[in-house]
Amino acid sequence: MDIKTSDTTHLTAAQRIDWLRLIRSDNVGPRTFRSLVNHFGGARAALERLPALARRGGASRPGRICSEADAWAELEAAEQRGVSLIAPGEFGYPPRLAVLDDAPPLLGVRGAREAFMRPMIAIVGSRNASGAGLKFASSLARDLSDAGFVIASGLARGIDQSAHRASLTGGTVAMLAGGHDKVYPPEHEDLLAAILASGGAISEMPLGHAPRARDFPRRNRLISGAALGVVVVEAAHRSGSLITARIAAEQGREVFAVPGSPLDPRAAGTNDLIKQGATLITEASDVIHAVEPIMGRPVELREPDEEPLASEPDESDRARIVGLLGPTPILLDDLIRMANASPAIVRTVLLELELAGRLERHGGGLVSLV
Amino acid sequence: MDIKTSDTTHLTAAQRIDWLRLIRSDNVGPRTFRSLVNHFGGARAALERLPALARRGGASRPGRICSEADAWAELEAAEQRGVSLIAPGEFGYPPRLAVLDDAPPLLGVRGAREAFMRPMIAIVGSRNASGAGLKFASSLARDLSDAGFVIASGLARGIDQSAHRASLTGGTVAMLAGGHDKVYPPEHEDLLAAILASGGAISEMPLGHAPRARDFPRRNRLISGAALGVVVVEAAHRSGSLITARIAAEQGREVFAVPGSPLDPRAAGTNDLIKQGATLITEASDVIHAVEPIMGRPVELREPDEEPLASEPDESDRARIVGLLGPTPILLDDLIRMANASPAIVRTVLLELELAGRLERHGGGLVSLV
Repeated sequence: MDIKTSDTTHLTAAQRIDWLRLIRSDNVGPRTFRSLVNHFGGARAALERLPALARRGGASRPGRICSEADAWAELEAAEQRGVSLIAPGEFGYPPRLAVLDDAPPLLGVRGAREAFMRPMIAIVGSRNASGAGLKFASSLARDLSDAGFVIASGLARGIDQSAHRASLTGGTVAMLAGGHDKVYPPEHEDLLAAILASGGAISEMPLGHAPRARDFPRRNRLISGAALGVVVVEAAHRSGSLITARIAAEQGREVFAVPGSPLDPRAAGTNDLIKQGATLITEASDVIHAVEPIMGRPVELREPDEEPLASEPDESDRARIVGLLGPTPILLDDLIRMANASPAIVRTVLLELELAGRLERHGGGLVSLV
Repeated sequence: MDIKTSDTTHLTAAQRIDWLRLIRSDNVGPRTFRSLVNHFGGARAALERLPALARRGGASRPGRICSEADAWAELEAAEQRGVSLIAPGEFGYPPRLAVLDDAPPLLGVRGAREAFMRPMIAIVGSRNASGAGLKFASSLARDLSDAGFVIASGLARGIDQSAHRASLTGGTVAMLAGGHDKVYPPEHEDLLAAILASGGAISEMPLGHAPRARDFPRRNRLISGAALGVVVVEAAHRSGSLITARIAAEQGREVFAVPGSPLDPRAAGTNDLIKQGATLITEASDVIHAVEPIMGRPVELREPDEEPLASEPDESDRARIVGLLGPTPILLDDLIRMANASPAIVRTVLLELELAGRLERHGGGLVSLV
């Protein structure tokens, strides 16, 4: 997968259909997509190998492979709604998002595509925010917007909504957890329409996909990944905004937090973030000073992160590796050492298991059987 | 001046009178006291040289030298009020304060002397504090007190008062800007009486000295200097508590700040402190974890910080050095380089000028003519 950060990448129509088929097939996520395309030299070749790989992984029933007709239908429905399905490196794909390991291979983009090419700051926080929190989010978003930044957020109630509204003029973008036609919360349809006038919305989900609870943390990586940094305005202990902050730190993004009184439970999460190393901010200039040095740096293409796969592991390798796995997560590195097999063979067996729906990948290089 | 941190130092009665005479004489502060005693081998010898030194420094009129009778009178009046005048290293002199460059040579200590020998945390903040700030100061002081720390503060209205009151049982100490008989604010006489029951109060000023505005920043060095760290609870921009925080940092003390909303002007100072590197705290355990590693370390005797003085600079040296000085502060190191004289000679001339009331020492090694 040839990812560039400029707009020099252009998929042909046939390639776009192949990419869409592959990412919409069962058990194929962004990382698996990348492994497959890297190894087989393209999405078309990978699609042809999917059934055999999944079978070797011990799929109890064959996983669904997205048909060409379904892919065309999705593409056409998207275009009718003004949604473009674009690849990393194409114009409108946020450049900083494009270089992440788990960047969506195709992103549904709606609205003013150029908004996604400008420097972006994410503002997130409680749905159940205080009046002071909402007021602060508004003034921060307005000031950052006036300074030329696009404001990214999640279209939620509370802080997200205040941040979007205050930056409508300068441009604001919404990252959606469901498909573009399944706006959540539903009462923010009007807000989304206002956002689309000068900003945009993105989703990696197909039209018709109603967001499930687990889609929100997944979506959060798009908010932080597209931005230079994330500001958490108000957050209680164990709130969703703290997940965004953790992902942002893992992605190497700046994490900013707005302090509050120790007696205010809605500041507990942000105060904790500061204790853990986030930058305390009280005004837009604090954010701007911190991101200015980063803005100057070009977005770096990442190194290929996967070593090659093996052409075909033999049965004894496969049996030994599966035998070492269980429901308790184990480190990939430990598995490679214990399996007494080459890393390429272990990775290939894991890919087969994944495509068979039998493997779960956790954070930190941990894997387990489902 | 032989400063020890244990209670092995004991001045004789005659020595104590000599020390008191020297520190109560005109133009002699703690640093000058140290230079003189180091150079002349004792306070008595220094007292004998004072008039000649001040004359060489060009004193327009002879500075007052505290008489033996006045010193005895002060010592007796202090004892009648329950105030002991003790030297660094004597029991009851806060060990961490004792090792500072500008430690008072004699400190008036009242109340339970052992309180000053225990690990201490200072809590300071606005006189005009919010209800939330007062409540937080109380609960923090109580929790730290329950954990075995003595709470130090400045007996002021607001945060100081709350911190003292909440730690009366465990022991709390008040650092006074005026003499022990000139309590400020006057309505805190009762609070001071309650503090003295299980804690104590210290002052470096003589009885009868009503505190002036400039005595408060000077007093603040005692609050931070005696403590392991200083917690600033609420502070607006440019408030006195921020001076304490700055002094604490210069003294190598931990600086802790309690965060607040950016919309709350009474949190502007504490949020700024955190931006500048102070540790954000929201509960007592944050403070305890930070100071635990320091508590284990012995209080280190500092290295002698003064090089020897010259026996007597000649007139041309003196004229050249005075000529280089003016009302604009200049770095001591620059002065030594430009004066083309030994550091000992420059230091001696400066000491003479100081005793003549003609020299002002600023922070950061800067000096100017008055």
